[in-house]
Amino acid sequence: MEPKPSFRATSRDGAARCGRLETCHGVVDTPAFMPVATYGAVRGVAPDELRQAGAQIVLANTYHLHERPGEAVVAGSGGLHGFTGWRGPWLTDSGGFQVTSLAEKAKLDERGVTFSSPLDGSRRQLTPETAVAIQRALGADIAMVLDECVPPGDATRARAAMQRTLRWAERSLGEPRADHQWLFGIVQGGDVAELRRGSARATAQLGFDGYAHGGLGLGESPERRVELVAIAHEELPEASPRYLMGLGRPRDLVDGIAAGVDLFDCVLPTRHARHGVLFTHQGLLRLKNARFASDASPPDPDCDCTTCAGFSRAYLRHLLRAGEALGARLASLHNLRFYFSLMRRSREAIREGRFEALRRQVVESSEAA
Amino acid sequence: MEPKPSFRATSRDGAARCGRLETCHGVVDTPAFMPVATYGAVRGVAPDELRQAGAQIVLANTYHLHERPGEAVVAGSGGLHGFTGWRGPWLTDSGGFQVTSLAEKAKLDERGVTFSSPLDGSRRQLTPETAVAIQRALGADIAMVLDECVPPGDATRARAAMQRTLRWAERSLGEPRADHQWLFGIVQGGDVAELRRGSARATAQLGFDGYAHGGLGLGESPERRVELVAIAHEELPEASPRYLMGLGRPRDLVDGIAAGVDLFDCVLPTRHARHGVLFTHQGLLRLKNARFASDASPPDPDCDCTTCAGFSRAYLRHLLRAGEALGARLASLHNLRFYFSLMRRSREAIREGRFEALRRQVVESSEAA
Repeated sequence: MEPKPSFRATSRDGAARCGRLETCHGVVDTPAFMPVATYGAVRGVAPDELRQAGAQIVLANTYHLHERPGEAVVAGSGGLHGFTGWRGPWLTDSGGFQVTSLAEKAKLDERGVTFSSPLDGSRRQLTPETAVAIQRALGADIAMVLDECVPPGDATRARAAMQRTLRWAERSLGEPRADHQWLFGIVQGGDVAELRRGSARATAQLGFDGYAHGGLGLGESPERRVELVAIAHEELPEASPRYLMGLGRPRDLVDGIAAGVDLFDCVLPTRHARHGVLFTHQGLLRLKNARFASDASPPDPDCDCTTCAGFSRAYLRHLLRAGEALGARLASLHNLRFYFSLMRRSREAIREGRFEALRRQVVESSEAA
Repeated sequence: MEPKPSFRATSRDGAARCGRLETCHGVVDTPAFMPVATYGAVRGVAPDELRQAGAQIVLANTYHLHERPGEAVVAGSGGLHGFTGWRGPWLTDSGGFQVTSLAEKAKLDERGVTFSSPLDGSRRQLTPETAVAIQRALGADIAMVLDECVPPGDATRARAAMQRTLRWAERSLGEPRADHQWLFGIVQGGDVAELRRGSARATAQLGFDGYAHGGLGLGESPERRVELVAIAHEELPEASPRYLMGLGRPRDLVDGIAAGVDLFDCVLPTRHARHGVLFTHQGLLRLKNARFASDASPPDPDCDCTTCAGFSRAYLRHLLRAGEALGARLASLHNLRFYFSLMRRSREAIREGRFEALRRQVVESSEAA
């Protein structure tokens, strides 16, 4: 029987903290950024490249994998660790966010989400129970409960969704999980502080292995978001890891870290890369700009990634404009390296008690860009 | 001043031969297969991966690079060797084949090819002189003359195109080249043996650094093609390298080698890969076939490539079906490795005087597939 993961905070700087998440598939140093491997692969990037760039844990989308190739195929190959080339820790989302935003005719009620498969039109249902069951088959180290996610601005809807998420969370706990698997609860409540506080308190009372902030990054201001995260943290157990779902820009990450977040995921570095937008130590670099057409310098002179070591802005720009797959791949590798380096720099700064200075520097350089 | 390339045959087995092509950017062991990097990158594959898979020389398309990013940009970065990440030898085609098959409203006359740029609609001209000038700017180790290419079946048209190709070849020789650059002439003549013999003889009399067979693989039978290649070889100088353009399947390669060809290029391994068709030691593997959905074995158990070492048929199939870029990349790497291994095995067999046995084995295994 494989052991469950464990987590402990190893150092603190204000509310920011470094930690060590241990799973039977490897260790994750937190704060950590999880690249998104929608179908079990980060777009165009190979597992050994992810590892080399600094990844320690990867996120996959339950809804997409359920559609294709189906969790039975993944389970038959030994779960995500055996099926894909990434043998390190995995986290899977519950599929709820994707199913409501992507599937056709998604209908949400107390039982769960009913939807038509975009692949074959068949009618399917995702419930709190099936969400856990699918994730058990996928075998990720960390699974997420099914939640109901609403955009900010409607307090009545936010309250109802938060309460339903709590009822779903309780049902999720009744479903068996893989031996080595953790299950995280999700805090909801829109942009209403007292709803989020109540959600955090009640979710913590149910007792999960870790806790996530859901439904953020959907319209609220960055300042408001940090407040909402901090309020929830007052109600969540110190000893458990905390995960800010789906965010975001470098400044969102350092703001989250300052509020005590341990885990992040976002498609931004790879999506920006495919559109020719590179994160650099000098701010955003929009490679499609004509002034880079003959620029023989590396994308980011201060970066130590393989892309910056071997390829010029001019060549990368050319590949991206010509739609050559190598362009998106090289740009993705660079952006991911930037994110992993930011996490490493954050951990160092926390250990050395100077995280607030780093946070300010990141916020300022992102405002300059 | 960088030295020009050199070539010498090092061993023979019947008409088949091993050789050593030396350029100031590296050595090429022949027979050699050149992967196609249309825009200066083999689809999704990085230069270090190409090298590791066994590539020693890469082909780029003059027409595509002329359109995007333009030869001035490439020249400004030190030519293809400086612009791309592939520092080894390059060969560029003349652009003629692409311009007549891809450009809009291409019009061919004695001066050259006039066409509308698909990018901005501007009217452009590719002549024997500008084809060499563009390739001088791109800086490839081997440049090709502009030729007129006609499909088999029309002897009158074939004769006219062959004669024009000769006149163009002569004009090409008057145009200056880069110091380190070789220029190859191209044998034409459709599927008419005496036209191809005459073309080879006259092209050899003009005096090029190497010779290519053009206009083959456009409809003639494989048996007929080998005859046409062999007839031309009777007229070409033994000491010069010979290149069969745009072909093809493994059996086309070993047939060409048996007739004395030294260089090959083809998009087949990478194009097949993107469509989920893998070359294996057991024949063609069509990964999209449902029977591979849960197949945890490597794509080719007898292959030593990184794809076969780390990924299963089931995972590769899933990635290709989901349109994940990593799938095409991993499949391309495998297929290229298969081609480079076939070339290595061919060279070994020639040196050991057993090439005909290998050729028969390849032909038989491709018939079984």
